[in-house]
Amino acid sequence: MDLKRAGKRIGLVPTMGALHEGHLSLVRAARETCDVVAASIFVNPTQFGPTEDLDQYPRTFEQDLRALAELGVELLYHPPSEEIYPPGFSTFVVPPRVANDLEGQCRPGHFRGVATVVLKLFQILPADVAFLGRKDYQQCLVVKDMVRDLQVPIQIQICPTIREQDGLAMSSRNRYLQSRERSQALAISESLQEAMSDYQAGERDPTMLELRAKEKLAAAGIDHVDYVAVRCATTLEPLSRPDQPAVMLIAVKVGTTRLIDNQLLTAQD
Amino acid sequence: MDLKRAGKRIGLVPTMGALHEGHLSLVRAARETCDVVAASIFVNPTQFGPTEDLDQYPRTFEQDLRALAELGVELLYHPPSEEIYPPGFSTFVVPPRVANDLEGQCRPGHFRGVATVVLKLFQILPADVAFLGRKDYQQCLVVKDMVRDLQVPIQIQICPTIREQDGLAMSSRNRYLQSRERSQALAISESLQEAMSDYQAGERDPTMLELRAKEKLAAAGIDHVDYVAVRCATTLEPLSRPDQPAVMLIAVKVGTTRLIDNQLLTAQD
Repeated sequence: MDLKRAGKRIGLVPTMGALHEGHLSLVRAARETCDVVAASIFVNPTQFGPTEDLDQYPRTFEQDLRALAELGVELLYHPPSEEIYPPGFSTFVVPPRVANDLEGQCRPGHFRGVATVVLKLFQILPADVAFLGRKDYQQCLVVKDMVRDLQVPIQIQICPTIREQDGLAMSSRNRYLQSRERSQALAISESLQEAMSDYQAGERDPTMLELRAKEKLAAAGIDHVDYVAVRCATTLEPLSRPDQPAVMLIAVKVGTTRLIDNQLLTAQD
Repeated sequence: MDLKRAGKRIGLVPTMGALHEGHLSLVRAARETCDVVAASIFVNPTQFGPTEDLDQYPRTFEQDLRALAELGVELLYHPPSEEIYPPGFSTFVVPPRVANDLEGQCRPGHFRGVATVVLKLFQILPADVAFLGRKDYQQCLVVKDMVRDLQVPIQIQICPTIREQDGLAMSSRNRYLQSRERSQALAISESLQEAMSDYQAGERDPTMLELRAKEKLAAAGIDHVDYVAVRCATTLEPLSRPDQPAVMLIAVKVGTTRLIDNQLLTAQD
């Protein structure tokens, strides 16, 4: 790649389009530290399960283009599906151990698809650094551990979750929510905030923290909970010591819309 | 990588050491077309099965070093096993479809190990072209298809099998052969030569070609035959038309030593 040869620092923001402020914050972070910013828009079929929302996944390409241009993105990669998965395609990445639980249990094959397409993007667009949003916490760890294990020459920069004013984590899927569901969904970020308060007030029992969050979700009428889990922040395994860096992760369905969110639990803000 | 930045063409010869003329021919091919030649020596544990010869695999590092230096290799990568597989390592490559049969059947997990380590080497040493020997025919296809599927920015150059004067394909494992086994082993390349003659004389029936080769191996006292197979030269699937490019592949054990060889079947030499 000539840009790389010229010594330019290239930042990559991989996305599935339907861009919101969360994505744009990644582009801004890239803009701040890189000479060249590349973005990809590719709704990756291999990370969707057979009953998931691949066909319905929002596509807002014209708007996305404008937003990226306004932020001065130099390179946009928007391949057709057959370019990424041509006939005969049959090589996959078995994602690292951190992929096995949580989303890995709820969405079998999801992280295999993620790991495979992200590795391909890192081969096609040999950036120096890729920017990912912490909202997809487990995905960030999957990509980080994959890059470490396969020694892909790229740095992974994790950026903060961007939220609506009332706290709901930004997500392309939020637009599926009907008005009542939108109110219910608020219980997700509120549960995480409460867990953080409890944690800072000294509560260290994962089961207790999980229980309170589940109660709060139930009280809001969210009855489909895939998981509420307090885990080790680096391995996502159950905590083995109460002083380990911890994260609470939540996955629920509000109506037919699946939403995830998470919060690092730290003794101080 | 600064060399790449400087516009140098980098050739890579990945090996497991115990170098013989086959490996050195790859280095010479790299030397001819590249500005910089890198070689790796790594006996990759993940491509050996639990009952295979990982511990016994020949290691001749001092000799290898001298041979590579004499041929002007600029870069040698010789990592300890813990550098390639540190604690926590858990990401693997599921190799492409062409890995499934033949060696894939006889050596479960072998090509997963090969694909994973080769992908890692291609990340660590971002060469423009890698040189592989056709003696490991299926391995060449596995690497080529993986590189195509994952869009790894490297070219794969397949080089001819180098043989002893009597026809035995060079292999690091030949040194295991005792004198009587060495004579028996000759039946492998002779069977392939005979298949080629028969093919050029008009024989197109895979079963007939395989049968004759098996008879020749048996006559030489080789009673452990993993496979003798005439297959499509690009997919390794059974031939669907008699005019398809074809290859005969053989894997046997001579005594305790497993040997493989192959021959493209072409109407003309």
